[in-house]
Amino acid sequence: MYGEVAIFSGNANPELAQDISQALAVPLCPADVFKFSNHNIFCRLQASVRGKDVFIIQPISNSWNKNGEFASVNDNLMELLIMIETAKRDSAGRISAVVPYYGYGRTDKKDQPRVPITARLVADLIITAGADRFLTVDLHAGQVQGFFNIQVDEVTAFYLLSDYIRDKNIENAVVVAGDIGATKRSRNFAQALNLPLAIIEKRRIQLEDGSRSEALNIIGEVEGKNCIIYDDEIDTAGTMVQAMTYLKKQDAQDIYICATHPVFSDPAGQRLSQSPAKEVAVTNTIALPPDKKFAKLTILSIAPVLAEVIRRIHLGISVGELFNE
Amino acid sequence: MYGEVAIFSGNANPELAQDISQALAVPLCPADVFKFSNHNIFCRLQASVRGKDVFIIQPISNSWNKNGEFASVNDNLMELLIMIETAKRDSAGRISAVVPYYGYGRTDKKDQPRVPITARLVADLIITAGADRFLTVDLHAGQVQGFFNIQVDEVTAFYLLSDYIRDKNIENAVVVAGDIGATKRSRNFAQALNLPLAIIEKRRIQLEDGSRSEALNIIGEVEGKNCIIYDDEIDTAGTMVQAMTYLKKQDAQDIYICATHPVFSDPAGQRLSQSPAKEVAVTNTIALPPDKKFAKLTILSIAPVLAEVIRRIHLGISVGELFNE
Amino acid sequence: MYGEVAIFSGNANPELAQDISQALAVPLCPADVFKFSNHNIFCRLQASVRGKDVFIIQPISNSWNKNGEFASVNDNLMELLIMIETAKRDSAGRISAVVPYYGYGRTDKKDQPRVPITARLVADLIITAGADRFLTVDLHAGQVQGFFNIQVDEVTAFYLLSDYIRDKNIENAVVVAGDIGATKRSRNFAQALNLPLAIIEKRRIQLEDGSRSEALNIIGEVEGKNCIIYDDEIDTAGTMVQAMTYLKKQDAQDIYICATHPVFSDPAGQRLSQSPAKEVAVTNTIALPPDKKFAKLTILSIAPVLAEVIRRIHLGISVGELFNE
Amino acid sequence: MYGEVAIFSGNANPELAQDISQALAVPLCPADVFKFSNHNIFCRLQASVRGKDVFIIQPISNSWNKNGEFASVNDNLMELLIMIETAKRDSAGRISAVVPYYGYGRTDKKDQPRVPITARLVADLIITAGADRFLTVDLHAGQVQGFFNIQVDEVTAFYLLSDYIRDKNIENAVVVAGDIGATKRSRNFAQALNLPLAIIEKRRIQLEDGSRSEALNIIGEVEGKNCIIYDDEIDTAGTMVQAMTYLKKQDAQDIYICATHPVFSDPAGQRLSQSPAKEVAVTNTIALPPDKKFAKLTILSIAPVLAEVIRRIHLGISVGELFNE
Amino acid sequence: MYGEVAIFSGNANPELAQDISQALAVPLCPADVFKFSNHNIFCRLQASVRGKDVFIIQPISNSWNKNGEFASVNDNLMELLIMIETAKRDSAGRISAVVPYYGYGRTDKKDQPRVPITARLVADLIITAGADRFLTVDLHAGQVQGFFNIQVDEVTAFYLLSDYIRDKNIENAVVVAGDIGATKRSRNFAQALNLPLAIIEKRRIQLEDGSRSEALNIIGEVEGKNCIIYDDEIDTAGTMVQAMTYLKKQDAQDIYICATHPVFSDPAGQRLSQSPAKEVAVTNTIALPPDKKFAKLTILSIAPVLAEVIRRIHLGISVGELFNE
Amino acid sequence: MYGEVAIFSGNANPELAQDISQALAVPLCPADVFKFSNHNIFCRLQASVRGKDVFIIQPISNSWNKNGEFASVNDNLMELLIMIETAKRDSAGRISAVVPYYGYGRTDKKDQPRVPITARLVADLIITAGADRFLTVDLHAGQVQGFFNIQVDEVTAFYLLSDYIRDKNIENAVVVAGDIGATKRSRNFAQALNLPLAIIEKRRIQLEDGSRSEALNIIGEVEGKNCIIYDDEIDTAGTMVQAMTYLKKQDAQDIYICATHPVFSDPAGQRLSQSPAKEVAVTNTIALPPDKKFAKLTILSIAPVLAEVIRRIHLGISVGELFNE
Repeated sequence: MYGEVAIFSGNANPELAQDISQALAVPLCPADVFKFSNHNIFCRLQASVRGKDVFIIQPISNSWNKNGEFASVNDNLMELLIMIETAKRDSAGRISAVVPYYGYGRTDKKDQPRVPITARLVADLIITAGADRFLTVDLHAGQVQGFFNIQVDEVTAFYLLSDYIRDKNIENAVVVAGDIGATKRSRNFAQALNLPLAIIEKRRIQLEDGSRSEALNIIGEVEGKNCIIYDDEIDTAGTMVQAMTYLKKQDAQDIYICATHPVFSDPAGQRLSQSPAKEVAVTNTIALPPDKKFAKLTILSIAPVLAEVIRRIHLGISVGELFNE
Repeated sequence: MYGEVAIFSGNANPELAQDISQALAVPLCPADVFKFSNHNIFCRLQASVRGKDVFIIQPISNSWNKNGEFASVNDNLMELLIMIETAKRDSAGRISAVVPYYGYGRTDKKDQPRVPITARLVADLIITAGADRFLTVDLHAGQVQGFFNIQVDEVTAFYLLSDYIRDKNIENAVVVAGDIGATKRSRNFAQALNLPLAIIEKRRIQLEDGSRSEALNIIGEVEGKNCIIYDDEIDTAGTMVQAMTYLKKQDAQDIYICATHPVFSDPAGQRLSQSPAKEVAVTNTIALPPDKKFAKLTILSIAPVLAEVIRRIHLGISVGELFNE
Repeated sequence: MYGEVAIFSGNANPELAQDISQALAVPLCPADVFKFSNHNIFCRLQASVRGKDVFIIQPISNSWNKNGEFASVNDNLMELLIMIETAKRDSAGRISAVVPYYGYGRTDKKDQPRVPITARLVADLIITAGADRFLTVDLHAGQVQGFFNIQVDEVTAFYLLSDYIRDKNIENAVVVAGDIGATKRSRNFAQALNLPLAIIEKRRIQLEDGSRSEALNIIGEVEGKNCIIYDDEIDTAGTMVQAMTYLKKQDAQDIYICATHPVFSDPAGQRLSQSPAKEVAVTNTIALPPDKKFAKLTILSIAPVLAEVIRRIHLGISVGELFNE
Repeated sequence: MYGEVAIFSGNANPELAQDISQALAVPLCPADVFKFSNHNIFCRLQASVRGKDVFIIQPISNSWNKNGEFASVNDNLMELLIMIETAKRDSAGRISAVVPYYGYGRTDKKDQPRVPITARLVADLIITAGADRFLTVDLHAGQVQGFFNIQVDEVTAFYLLSDYIRDKNIENAVVVAGDIGATKRSRNFAQALNLPLAIIEKRRIQLEDGSRSEALNIIGEVEGKNCIIYDDEIDTAGTMVQAMTYLKKQDAQDIYICATHPVFSDPAGQRLSQSPAKEVAVTNTIALPPDKKFAKLTILSIAPVLAEVIRRIHLGISVGELFNE
Repeated sequence: MYGEVAIFSGNANPELAQDISQALAVPLCPADVFKFSNHNIFCRLQASVRGKDVFIIQPISNSWNKNGEFASVNDNLMELLIMIETAKRDSAGRISAVVPYYGYGRTDKKDQPRVPITARLVADLIITAGADRFLTVDLHAGQVQGFFNIQVDEVTAFYLLSDYIRDKNIENAVVVAGDIGATKRSRNFAQALNLPLAIIEKRRIQLEDGSRSEALNIIGEVEGKNCIIYDDEIDTAGTMVQAMTYLKKQDAQDIYICATHPVFSDPAGQRLSQSPAKEVAVTNTIALPPDKKFAKLTILSIAPVLAEVIRRIHLGISVGELFNE
Repeated sequence: MYGEVAIFSGNANPELAQDISQALAVPLCPADVFKFSNHNIFCRLQASVRGKDVFIIQPISNSWNKNGEFASVNDNLMELLIMIETAKRDSAGRISAVVPYYGYGRTDKKDQPRVPITARLVADLIITAGADRFLTVDLHAGQVQGFFNIQVDEVTAFYLLSDYIRDKNIENAVVVAGDIGATKRSRNFAQALNLPLAIIEKRRIQLEDGSRSEALNIIGEVEGKNCIIYDDEIDTAGTMVQAMTYLKKQDAQDIYICATHPVFSDPAGQRLSQSPAKEVAVTNTIALPPDKKFAKLTILSIAPVLAEVIRRIHLGISVGELFNE
């Protein structure tokens, strides 16, 4: 229906793009995407995309390039938008924004007055720039799909992570929701692994002296059990480490952490490395610089799944069936 | 900034519109809104709305008029859209769709392939018809606000219901999430009432004979306690009654049900009436015909809150502060 | 240009969809389209439509399913919109709304102040839902095509009906416009059959006692002639039967009624059955429940024409030529 | 709601604009609107319109300026669009396009394959240029209002013309529809004057030698009667003169012609001047150069009606009531 | 990707369309495009364009047909829009507006208050009418591409003209910018021909008696040199002839004029013919009537370049590479 | 027309916002605008903007806050967009984006294949976020105004800078365009100061050994003169310093540099400080950190002009007249 596949990578996660390209056996298209000294991003495609089925791979996350130069989530979003604009003006046949990590995804509702719904804004920006399709991995909330009026495919790392845990054959285990917001997600993980569920709840409490504090309490059983905490992303790991400490106080045994997106804002790396976690398993939707990696970190590759979905989108084959099986 | 306030009511909940009108001391504007014999809805405003600040009150729910004639959620949605279209073509200054119950709100994400996100579609229809603003009560998910790119005000009945319960001074109580999806909402309710939380979890299980079934289990403590179940809406009350029966088996004491929206699809009325619930408290966002009411049903009026918000929207006064206090 | 044809039917006229499918030798695609107990319509496609050339067949009319359950014109419109939304989010290649009867088509202008142009609103809703093309039969006014800015094909049953009448070889005949609004349409019918034209005009008159009434009068000759009344649709048949009674008073002979769309709002069936009409010929754009059918009713099938047009749309062959011959 | 009124005139009918300005007691705003030697139109407003309620008066018709220089309907449409664009970029508060004659209004449907619906295109162009409102006189078809999704006010010269005829006290009169397309409009005119209706029908006929011709015939009574022909516009006057000649052959007495818009394409002036018409009454929606005027032409001014409607639009007072009385 | 190529020509430059058609070996598609006597343009395609890859060739310039009848830039723009509308409603697969000369291109910024940016307006009109792509030659400013959000290809006659001049082997030559606005363009021309650059600057000066005048002065060397003046278009040739006269006063030798677009508003033909220019070289983007041609005028054909670009657009081959070589 | 003025500042140039606020005697509205540790920007307004006339001041440039923390042009653009989104969802009456420096403004055309027109993209992003108006200072090209279809006011620092230079009474002066692209701008500056103009031209040349190089040459007279170089912005100052060196070689006297926007990408500060320039005069559209300032730098404040324009926009008074005087 469209011309041949043309895959481009922004600067946020070129290794993932390379892996996808390899899995598809389609070489990455060359393009100059760089910052001028005034930090304006520029893009020059090195071959025409006229009529082609273009896929632009770029997570909306912070990144560090090989020289350690930092690019913020906003730099990388803008880079994505400019690459889409460039492909559009070069008469691409169809443009798919492939965004393995959807930044700003947690700012998805007005839970207090006078705040933005940035997750909707970002969707509008991507559409305005000229994307025809959107492909992403594990949105923070499923409703974010509804922020788009272009076609969306959402891929999940759920099976990748649950298969990984299952293969460990952890005995006497329980899935623990690290906070109340992760309950539904954790229940699904528990069900897939055929394990019970427990929930850690944080409450604001009033102390005797009138000051306010927070207290954790557990709903369900964790004592003497091996705990598996599952969430969509790990940011600073503050809540996660707090949960682990609390679980240990409740006499939990080993603790395993699973999450799709390793946002790892400082000091996540240090915190997790020093935490009671036995293992932390994430995927490579976000590229991690060397100093954010640590011994007990396992990185599973989402590239084969994304490659297969790109292949199906290009050929017009059902994507839903991929996850139904 | 706009002309005077003009409030219209569709046929879905004229009593609520009347209450709002009274609370505002602004009479309802007359309009002929009716179905032709071919069920095409027609609308004729009985006075000009040129330049006025128009509010059209219509929940997107099923309804029964005084003669017992049924109008489906789709009839009432279409009636809303046609009233907006009419006001727009009569040169209204600003049109606010006041939708106390947002039907289709639970179809807000693609949790399986090849299904719609109808909650986004309905938002688009309302915008297409010509609404400038949207005012609603307790959306099923906060993200639905992000489906709109017009200005939205979301009013909550949370305080109305939690105040009502607090005044009962129920001892030895626990808030129970009737299913996993209600966890976060129930936690907030529990926190407001300074009560503990328990959660009922439903699991698909494999029976010995290979067939599949469902089993409930409780996370947290309910034995000997008075239970308060809180949710945004009660539809057929199937899950709700199942939860109550289960709680009773766990030796719970009294059970109180609170919900903003009494959708009450058959046989909700009968089920709740015969259920172990001691009381069912809802609001009047949706009009209930006589046969859906029952002895232990309490209906709290949302009209004063909606009237106050309409007043603030018209005058350009902060709405957020109304709920911050 | 697009993938293979995928034809879906809503619940408003599955028999017509079946006939079209048979004429095309393309099986209907399976889909679950149903109402929940809260009357929210839900849709789940049973096979992927990714990249396909999707046709969704659904007249915007009232309907009764096999169990006699009623669905209003608004239910069926909403069902159409939800099916379009579903196909769009499942990445359909192109979506054609096939609407054999365009409900709300007569609300196409503001002939009094403060009324809607619902026919434009409905066009906007269909476009907003995501339709790429629109295919319909005999619009009430040709200008309604201009309400759409997507591509429209309008099929006519004019030749089907005029051929049917011609084959009857009715002698000494005249075509009669049943009211002034049908004049132009009737003239074309008269010209196709090479017959003279007469027009029935209704006037508001002032009676001697000051009250107002209506009086019919005839422009042209009908005495002793066989009359053929032609119109685009028959709704309650009130005007139609009034015209027939009047014609009989003017000593007309046999009366034949032709119309594309049998809207047949109550009590049309009873009225027509008991009227002086010798025969009533309509098409199957709208499905009729058993109790709306009667002895002198003839139903001609529009399915072969719609099937041929769908075939041409899919293949990119001229549709205009189909009606030029 | 908006700043003060600012009225501008294009070059198509400055006399009408002057009359409206006088009736409103609001002076026309000065602006340079002219063609460069390359026929590019340029516009420079001579005073700021920031925040003002701008009305731009320009019929979409051919025109001749005081020096006899011709401007086509397309020149005048483009002039309108450029003036709207200019006012928009100068930060007008609200822009109303006042188009006393809507050119291209008869190209409002596809009555043959592969033709445009230019009346919709023109509506889209006016909206695209930036008009917030549209004000016009007697559209060829009421449905054209539905081509706009901005607010429209349609003024009618019906009462102006029917009052004018009524005051003549013509005895033994009949209203005649000059062709089948004018039937409904003529019926309304007949009803307003309490006169009978007759219709002239044109038919294609097959002659004995196989060639095709056209023949007129009359439906209703005209013999010995004074005839009043009413239509929305007179273009070349070909059909009109043909009808008059035919009426005279049917022994009609005096013939009066009424029409809102004197399009008067050549040779309309000569034809009407030499025709059997006793009088031709039109309005000044279109400016006529001296050589298109003739002795029996009466021009009624639409300016007072347009001025009153502009006043009401500005003040936010009902326009519908103006015509209801 | 689209159906076969279908090329249509408006009435502004049918010879160019014919040349393009010949160069492509694809016959022009027949269509009736004409003005009614009321100057309304009408269009009827003589064959279906359903699914085809349609190219409509029409410069936005004044034109004279074979009978010497004048059509203004506005007539020709409107003709283009109506042809696009017609092709869109006939279900064209893709529509490319091929506009060899983009009229209104010099009204591209607000260099004084209260003026339009008509070049943006025209872009919006073309998009609104339904064009999917835009193809043009030598825009007055490159930024005009950014006025479009559809895909644009801009072809240049730069190489055609510079090759033509180079082949003349003019000795002792200098490229002269005729006014300050042509400096950059002239520098590029000078660089391509490896010649020096001089610039004529016009200044408003205050005379001794207080009145204001304009004075030219030269920046750079022209004495005794052959001068080549290059610009994108020649309108009335006033500035051009003024520059030539001034150059002659500075003892310049031969003067050659090069420009892409021969707008030639009166009295350009006469002026250039009588000017000191040795030769005037232009392209055929705009059709010239016989009386605007003169002995020292050379017309180079842009048809082969446009044909090649159309071929590449249709096949999805890089256009950029055509000009990179 | 709108509620009271509410002025907000992003983090890119709070000093300028403070100055504008002071000049207007309207205090800045408080808001929390900050980055989370994942570099996601968040915004929380500290008071309602419902119905207010909101102005958000934020240049699209790099910036350093008081702690020296860097924010890129993309961070600051995104901050602007999020603040607009927040104000929109808080029901602002009107939102004006006040962008003293329009980053990406030089990427305004496709001067080579396969590059973006980012200046158009940024305009689209600002409109998409919800801005109703746009206010900026000295765009790189006037055509960029045409990239917006919302209302734009462009303020100029031309008079500020030319007045400043005039007051210096520099004798024997010439305005020099530092490169060919600055010619027109420099001519206007020269004319305002009644000074001659010279132009520095850079050419690619072919060396004898076949390699390519660049050479400068001067068009016009600079020997022994005091030179004033004027441009819209200074980025890395590379071209500027190259020009100064060249001028000195041509025996120019003192050199003065004027520019509106001190982009000052490294190593601009160092370069200019060490350059032959006698003085460098810029405005404060962009905030400069201490290490980018140097002894011969003069910063003129644009705040009074911006404040006056904001006042006029709010009151609906002509802005054009401000610059006409």
